[in-house]
Amino acid sequence: MKNMLISELGENELIRILLEKRDKLLDNVDTTVKNSYHDDAALIENNSRYTVVSTDMLIQHSHFPDGMSHYQMGAKIVTVNVSDILAMNATPCSILISMGLPLEMTKREYEELTDGILAKCKEYGITLIGGDINENTEIVLCGTSIGKADDTVKLQCNIGYGDLIAVTGELGSPAAALDILYNNDNIPEKYCDKEIIDTLLHPSLPLKESEILRNHPDIVTGITDITDGLAMELGHLHEKNNGVGFEIYYDKLPFNNTVKDVAAFNNKDLSEYLLHFGEDFELLLTLKAEKYHEYLEDLDYFHIIGKTNDSDKITLIRDGNEYELSVRGYEHLKDD
Amino acid sequence: MKNMLISELGENELIRILLEKRDKLLDNVDTTVKNSYHDDAALIENNSRYTVVSTDMLIQHSHFPDGMSHYQMGAKIVTVNVSDILAMNATPCSILISMGLPLEMTKREYEELTDGILAKCKEYGITLIGGDINENTEIVLCGTSIGKADDTVKLQCNIGYGDLIAVTGELGSPAAALDILYNNDNIPEKYCDKEIIDTLLHPSLPLKESEILRNHPDIVTGITDITDGLAMELGHLHEKNNGVGFEIYYDKLPFNNTVKDVAAFNNKDLSEYLLHFGEDFELLLTLKAEKYHEYLEDLDYFHIIGKTNDSDKITLIRDGNEYELSVRGYEHLKDD
Repeated sequence: MKNMLISELGENELIRILLEKRDKLLDNVDTTVKNSYHDDAALIENNSRYTVVSTDMLIQHSHFPDGMSHYQMGAKIVTVNVSDILAMNATPCSILISMGLPLEMTKREYEELTDGILAKCKEYGITLIGGDINENTEIVLCGTSIGKADDTVKLQCNIGYGDLIAVTGELGSPAAALDILYNNDNIPEKYCDKEIIDTLLHPSLPLKESEILRNHPDIVTGITDITDGLAMELGHLHEKNNGVGFEIYYDKLPFNNTVKDVAAFNNKDLSEYLLHFGEDFELLLTLKAEKYHEYLEDLDYFHIIGKTNDSDKITLIRDGNEYELSVRGYEHLKDD
Repeated sequence: MKNMLISELGENELIRILLEKRDKLLDNVDTTVKNSYHDDAALIENNSRYTVVSTDMLIQHSHFPDGMSHYQMGAKIVTVNVSDILAMNATPCSILISMGLPLEMTKREYEELTDGILAKCKEYGITLIGGDINENTEIVLCGTSIGKADDTVKLQCNIGYGDLIAVTGELGSPAAALDILYNNDNIPEKYCDKEIIDTLLHPSLPLKESEILRNHPDIVTGITDITDGLAMELGHLHEKNNGVGFEIYYDKLPFNNTVKDVAAFNNKDLSEYLLHFGEDFELLLTLKAEKYHEYLEDLDYFHIIGKTNDSDKITLIRDGNEYELSVRGYEHLKDD
């Protein structure tokens, strides 16, 4: 019984199991949802100026490292999708998740997967409003997150000169976690820090910081998440803001000290972890300097890592020298 | 050059190709879309009471029969998703499509896939506002369709006694097409009807009928699409309407005559095609009888196939006999 396979249950029973859990855990989380899962589509009553929507697909062999639990896989599909809503300075409301699942998945694995999905929905204050279940050789999860925003919403194209550049949280931990877990059999136990490993296997989002930003929208000029790595994300912001330059102070980049040790142990420059790996579920921000000092400085939730200027270049100041920052990170479906 | 692989291009170039095509073909289709593909999420300005949203995933080995072109695969992911918006009596607006693609896919195949997606978007009057591209062993496409509605929106739970039951278009053609193409090598040429085969490989949606229904919302009491087969869909409606019975007249079910011939040639009862296969991208409706006769009867867009009563059963009247209709169709991830 405990090893029952999902193929013995079928799609309808799998959805019933999911909805029973959901209705227990997420009852009335989003009161604008008038109907979901009980008709052809979900019905949401609009109560804001804008709807914000984003989609991300995760496929087992690319996105779920060995040893990641089904619970963590479920949690991650929610996190990656909701991250894009926070990156618009919008409020997350709901999510739809389609799944391709292997026939040999057990009922218990399926329950863990859905528990992970629903726990993150609860943490982020959103509800699961739709989905589809199919058969695939490996696990593929596709989410679509929906948020709402009024004029607090922020596009990436309004960055000015002299803005502060900031990040929430620490950088480079997921990169270090990958090396800790998979790239070095001889890694000392003292580097196997759960907090660091969790940033890769069970990441969370900067909810408190997001809430502060939504409450102070006039401070924010640009916002994005850092899932492609800091350098690549700065490249995206640079593309969308003609003439604006981004100057980053290397010694201001926030990181966990163990991340530095892991880099050294693996003979890597720490900058590879901090700038070029990604998977950092943190926000990269540009902030109006005078308003930041007035409202946010004392809150100590944001790390100032640089400022914008009129150079039209991305530069890194390190050890007193100025370098042009190479805009590279990870790209899917690219041979190299 | 012509056999260039998508793995030589990478995700960013693939998205650039897609957006170049989109911006040529779908410019300003949906003016409520304020930003898409150029930020972390799409931004839609709400101009209706409700947002309607649905997701469907298609995986090559389950959903794309051999011989289906990449263009047809792209078209189908749009059709299956938009069908659910019509099934709410809502107006389709936009779609997000994530793709898992094999590394060995050629640039030409990718272009055909995206041409199919964009052609259907144009046909349905919607725009493509987001997506994600990853690597997978086979093609997996996941769409999320977004529609808008005011009080014209229809849930499935408001069906009364004495309503007319209707369908748009003909039933059973996709089922016949599957037998024509794959289940009988000796099928005579005269049965290989392009119109029938297209209902399986390149289905379309009842756009004109949907528009009429949105313009006469007071006539409609229930609406759904018939993708799980007429019997299964009647089962869904029955579940949601306590006490209501559904009486179907077999001799009123609309079908293409060739479909009847194909069933006979394959020694199948025509009812299997008409009632239990699905993939019929048509709408199943319940309509207020007096209002139907007043407004819609002369339009000749709807086929009346039965009526509701207070029997709390689904019955089929065939050759003067009354049968309880077996609620069965196709279910994913179910051994049998």
